Amino acid sequence: MQIPIFTQNPTRPVEIGDKSVSELMDAMQYTGFQGRKLAESVKAWENMLKEEKVTIFMGLSGAMVPAGMRKTITYLIEKRLIDCLVSTGANVFHDCHEALGLKHYVGSHMANDEELFEHGVDRIYDVFAYEEEFRNTDHFIAEFAKKHDGRHYSSREFIHLLGKEISEKGDKQSIISSAYRHNVPIFIPALCDSSIGIGLTIARRMGCNVNIDQIKDVDEITRMVELSEKTGVVYVGGGVPKNFIQQTEVVASIMGHDVAGHEYAIQYTTDVPHWGGLSGCTFDEAVSWGKIAKEAKKIQVFVDATIALPIVTHALHEKTKHVKRNIPSFTWDAGVAEICFETL
Amino acid sequence: MQIPIFTQNPTRPVEIGDKSVSELMDAMQYTGFQGRKLAESVKAWENMLKEEKVTIFMGLSGAMVPAGMRKTITYLIEKRLIDCLVSTGANVFHDCHEALGLKHYVGSHMANDEELFEHGVDRIYDVFAYEEEFRNTDHFIAEFAKKHDGRHYSSREFIHLLGKEISEKGDKQSIISSAYRHNVPIFIPALCDSSIGIGLTIARRMGCNVNIDQIKDVDEITRMVELSEKTGVVYVGGGVPKNFIQQTEVVASIMGHDVAGHEYAIQYTTDVPHWGGLSGCTFDEAVSWGKIAKEAKKIQVFVDATIALPIVTHALHEKTKHVKRNIPSFTWDAGVAEICFETL
Amino acid sequence: MQIPIFTQNPTRPVEIGDKSVSELMDAMQYTGFQGRKLAESVKAWENMLKEEKVTIFMGLSGAMVPAGMRKTITYLIEKRLIDCLVSTGANVFHDCHEALGLKHYVGSHMANDEELFEHGVDRIYDVFAYEEEFRNTDHFIAEFAKKHDGRHYSSREFIHLLGKEISEKGDKQSIISSAYRHNVPIFIPALCDSSIGIGLTIARRMGCNVNIDQIKDVDEITRMVELSEKTGVVYVGGGVPKNFIQQTEVVASIMGHDVAGHEYAIQYTTDVPHWGGLSGCTFDEAVSWGKIAKEAKKIQVFVDATIALPIVTHALHEKTKHVKRNIPSFTWDAGVAEICFETL
Amino acid sequence: MQIPIFTQNPTRPVEIGDKSVSELMDAMQYTGFQGRKLAESVKAWENMLKEEKVTIFMGLSGAMVPAGMRKTITYLIEKRLIDCLVSTGANVFHDCHEALGLKHYVGSHMANDEELFEHGVDRIYDVFAYEEEFRNTDHFIAEFAKKHDGRHYSSREFIHLLGKEISEKGDKQSIISSAYRHNVPIFIPALCDSSIGIGLTIARRMGCNVNIDQIKDVDEITRMVELSEKTGVVYVGGGVPKNFIQQTEVVASIMGHDVAGHEYAIQYTTDVPHWGGLSGCTFDEAVSWGKIAKEAKKIQVFVDATIALPIVTHALHEKTKHVKRNIPSFTWDAGVAEICFETL
Repeated sequence: MQIPIFTQNPTRPVEIGDKSVSELMDAMQYTGFQGRKLAESVKAWENMLKEEKVTIFMGLSGAMVPAGMRKTITYLIEKRLIDCLVSTGANVFHDCHEALGLKHYVGSHMANDEELFEHGVDRIYDVFAYEEEFRNTDHFIAEFAKKHDGRHYSSREFIHLLGKEISEKGDKQSIISSAYRHNVPIFIPALCDSSIGIGLTIARRMGCNVNIDQIKDVDEITRMVELSEKTGVVYVGGGVPKNFIQQTEVVASIMGHDVAGHEYAIQYTTDVPHWGGLSGCTFDEAVSWGKIAKEAKKIQVFVDATIALPIVTHALHEKTKHVKRNIPSFTWDAGVAEICFETL
Repeated sequence: MQIPIFTQNPTRPVEIGDKSVSELMDAMQYTGFQGRKLAESVKAWENMLKEEKVTIFMGLSGAMVPAGMRKTITYLIEKRLIDCLVSTGANVFHDCHEALGLKHYVGSHMANDEELFEHGVDRIYDVFAYEEEFRNTDHFIAEFAKKHDGRHYSSREFIHLLGKEISEKGDKQSIISSAYRHNVPIFIPALCDSSIGIGLTIARRMGCNVNIDQIKDVDEITRMVELSEKTGVVYVGGGVPKNFIQQTEVVASIMGHDVAGHEYAIQYTTDVPHWGGLSGCTFDEAVSWGKIAKEAKKIQVFVDATIALPIVTHALHEKTKHVKRNIPSFTWDAGVAEICFETL
Repeated sequence: MQIPIFTQNPTRPVEIGDKSVSELMDAMQYTGFQGRKLAESVKAWENMLKEEKVTIFMGLSGAMVPAGMRKTITYLIEKRLIDCLVSTGANVFHDCHEALGLKHYVGSHMANDEELFEHGVDRIYDVFAYEEEFRNTDHFIAEFAKKHDGRHYSSREFIHLLGKEISEKGDKQSIISSAYRHNVPIFIPALCDSSIGIGLTIARRMGCNVNIDQIKDVDEITRMVELSEKTGVVYVGGGVPKNFIQQTEVVASIMGHDVAGHEYAIQYTTDVPHWGGLSGCTFDEAVSWGKIAKEAKKIQVFVDATIALPIVTHALHEKTKHVKRNIPSFTWDAGVAEICFETL
Repeated sequence: MQIPIFTQNPTRPVEIGDKSVSELMDAMQYTGFQGRKLAESVKAWENMLKEEKVTIFMGLSGAMVPAGMRKTITYLIEKRLIDCLVSTGANVFHDCHEALGLKHYVGSHMANDEELFEHGVDRIYDVFAYEEEFRNTDHFIAEFAKKHDGRHYSSREFIHLLGKEISEKGDKQSIISSAYRHNVPIFIPALCDSSIGIGLTIARRMGCNVNIDQIKDVDEITRMVELSEKTGVVYVGGGVPKNFIQQTEVVASIMGHDVAGHEYAIQYTTDVPHWGGLSGCTFDEAVSWGKIAKEAKKIQVFVDATIALPIVTHALHEKTKHVKRNIPSFTWDAGVAEICFETL
């Protein structure tokens, strides 16, 4: 009987010694379980960056900014390891909050919540924040919205303008000001399901009629996919950001475009497939829908993103210092999007 | 030393015998772990139904309709075990799909996804559907949207009209037609992040300008909370529906209303607190934010909703047959909401 | 194109109404996700009971007795829904504890553990016990062991004698006295990793030389498999009990027996496959090892056992009242086992 | 109102740049969620190594050796980052397997298990092995056991002798030969629940009467705790190894020793508290039992060990190069243990 090909490659126990972060990731490629998957995700992302004309979409969920991931996301945008960000509203709200000089605090997941409430402290697992300071940021959003009374925006347009405002205040480190300066679109499909929505609702009740057009969001991001030669996706968690990016392939297909599914797919998740939800489903399930190409490189890593993001980004930092990437650049003119490529 | 009060009540091993579903739940109240929590959730829900003037909000996430939970949700609406539903778009899309006579199928989570794709079959864990039939429903939504060209709706208004349409087609079993007939509002905060959004985008690209106003959603549901004497929440999963209901307390508080947090809180979840996300966070964490009252009865059950929903609803069916509930009824007139109570 | 066979069977939304527990389980067979799996596990277990000459092994881990599952396990033994139990030591220790009239208590998972420690209260998630009462049971085990000084037993033999002792004290409800009376062998492969081990160590330090021979355990349970025509397994959790039963197929095969893997396989688990452990691995993975027959009916349900056990057992109670099962009965004589079948 | 002390320390977004593994871990201490916990575990372990006269026990479960963690464990033993190892039998079996020159292979978690079975390939999630090669190692164990016919050992003694045998064959990299050479005791409380048990059972059926005395295991490890001034624990996963080390505090206390619980406690786990099991329970729960000191530094990290172990060990490698640790050394003479300290 012929020895099947799947058993030619022995696992290689990781040798402990002086290694850089990317060398450690390289070594972990020959281990097993999620350690190997984490290493494979670095490799897949690196390959995606080296390939010609791939547009990279990142979905971002979870309270990543309070948990100290803000500059990591900013780095991904500035160094163009991603080309488009789809986020929960919370992350962008918290990014504004820090851009305004306010803070999140190292707390404890064992704190007494009644006591915290009495002190006006909000808990996000083991991170704390002041409710009063959050309300300050709510009102900043409300005031910003009021400047746009009567306007009608996709979330991308609204966040672009908010990024411009933050940028003009001198901030250089925030996610949205970096995205503004580097022309990386940010979509927030469920914008009002967040404190940004709270700010917008305060403005609305004061009579301001800015309008966030969620259908325009679907239209715009789908146009990005339709214009792209290839697409890759990196999901931090699941939720709306994952589904919103996944469904672009279905919309584009219905619209008659010859799309074949995303061609690179990486997810860092703590959800699992067997509850039947989109957040935890395998990329193989997505193949049945045509959302992911059947030939795609698909890496799903079961790990908390606060572990994965810093490690993976540091490894990519080492690996891509000298990579000249061919980045897609999108422009919109009256709803019509265009793409061009430039070398970073 | 005084014997502390927490050790007076022995666990009681469940006796196996002839028991109805609700009797079994009663027996499980004296066990431990999630079996006890499931039983406690039945008790808490029953108590909430017996209390005067509580408005009950349900958050619904996960592919519950494909997984056979459609008539369970319809039952909760018709018998008014809930007063307001906040859902993902997918569940309402799938509800429409079945209302149109199309089906979801008993499949297998072990199927070959490339083969399914070739046969035009979409997989949702162990449930199958035909992509072509889904597209039929997408186009139904698009055609429906085109009838409302130029209109501007909250998702509640849009789903209300869609429920009317489905109801007039003669359907009596769907979630949205039941909600229409029983005046139970349904909000879908991230409406376009679903196949309903796909339908709306098809319509948009054909030039239809129906607009879904997500700020209006926040405004409307917050008014419901502001008008209610007490509120209770039941979350099936987490995601946007949970956060959207939770944040009403914050919005109402900022608006100067004297709200104290939801007073009953039940969640069926498969997420966990330690990833720091809102979906899995404890109700205690929510106390720090003022979203849940510190005195609230708080039951979080770690279980797949496809197990919990049928069992809990059957138990409540037995327990509440003869309960005359005082139900809140909401009417909207030009954005101004009113509440009245009637006995069911 | 031929419609593939996997899409002929629509999901059937569960209708809420008057249903017994087993009728509810029957209805849930046509849903999806873990609700369906729970229902399928009832069906598979029922089928296993109706088949001729199947020996059913149950693996039991987790603190099931403190959590109120004691009489459920006793029922499974008395009604012979299982033929052999492999357990953690803790469950049998806690069973003795309750047989001695001592209790576990309904507690809270939010208790202050430092305070509990000061009051001598041990916490098992939301169940409490008195440390002093546990030590009473430790000493009962030590005294029992001392009566067997110089003897050399498999864990099965030791627990059989302990069950006899408890039975002779008049107890009729405990797991081990029922197992003794109904000739159902109980193995505890890691006996000393539990408070029974604590009791045995107390005895040892007092000079008692009772010896628990774990190699004999492997030998004896493997002989049961070798003598059985067919075998089925039901795992409550994973851990040592699951692996210990799984590995019997490998041992029997090495010994030259023509075994083909267990032919029914049910697991209730909260673990998942992707951490690479035996507790959470799929039964498909077990097929690669020859531990599970490739044709076996394999149902893995992701659910807390304190939810699954009472529900499944009540459903089986209704379904098997009139089933006359052909039960295997094992006898040992000087290490040589024999099997005979009798109708219950 | 006084600003409460818990909000003085802002989270610090990780800056991406050139960092060593330990510098990255240091930076992650000021983030949130499990990323912070991972960093805190490095800090706690480092502190434990710097403290005088702490005996460090490691519990090791999961298929860590097939997953490429073998040399990591060997490193921990050789550099004396641990003083005692409690393991599943599987890890030591797989360690022998590799010591004999046999391999585990990089496989796929998506493989067809029926096909693997036909090719004699065993799957451990995404790692493969040849069944025939495993049987070779089973027989090696059986032959080794036969050399010790009539002897009576604790698992520590048996593994010590096995390590000596492997060491004398020239192996320098295996866990057990390193442990032998560096006098680090290894306990395997459920030795026969593994392929080592299979080997022992083969020997037994050939008439060999080597005996593994599990009561002696409890006695010996408890003596180590009784002799130690302080103890710390590091758990990789849960299972028997965690419980076995935890219960030493209870046994020692019953024996009249003035123990106060382990004083450092680190766990890398993928289990969770709410299923009520010992594997996933918090260290706070363990405080109620007196197993962990209430003042102990307690860090539980929810992460796959194949991610945590290489990263944490590399960080410790960088941090402890110049640390002279005061290591405890244990000797046994006829069941009486002694401790002395030496500087590494």
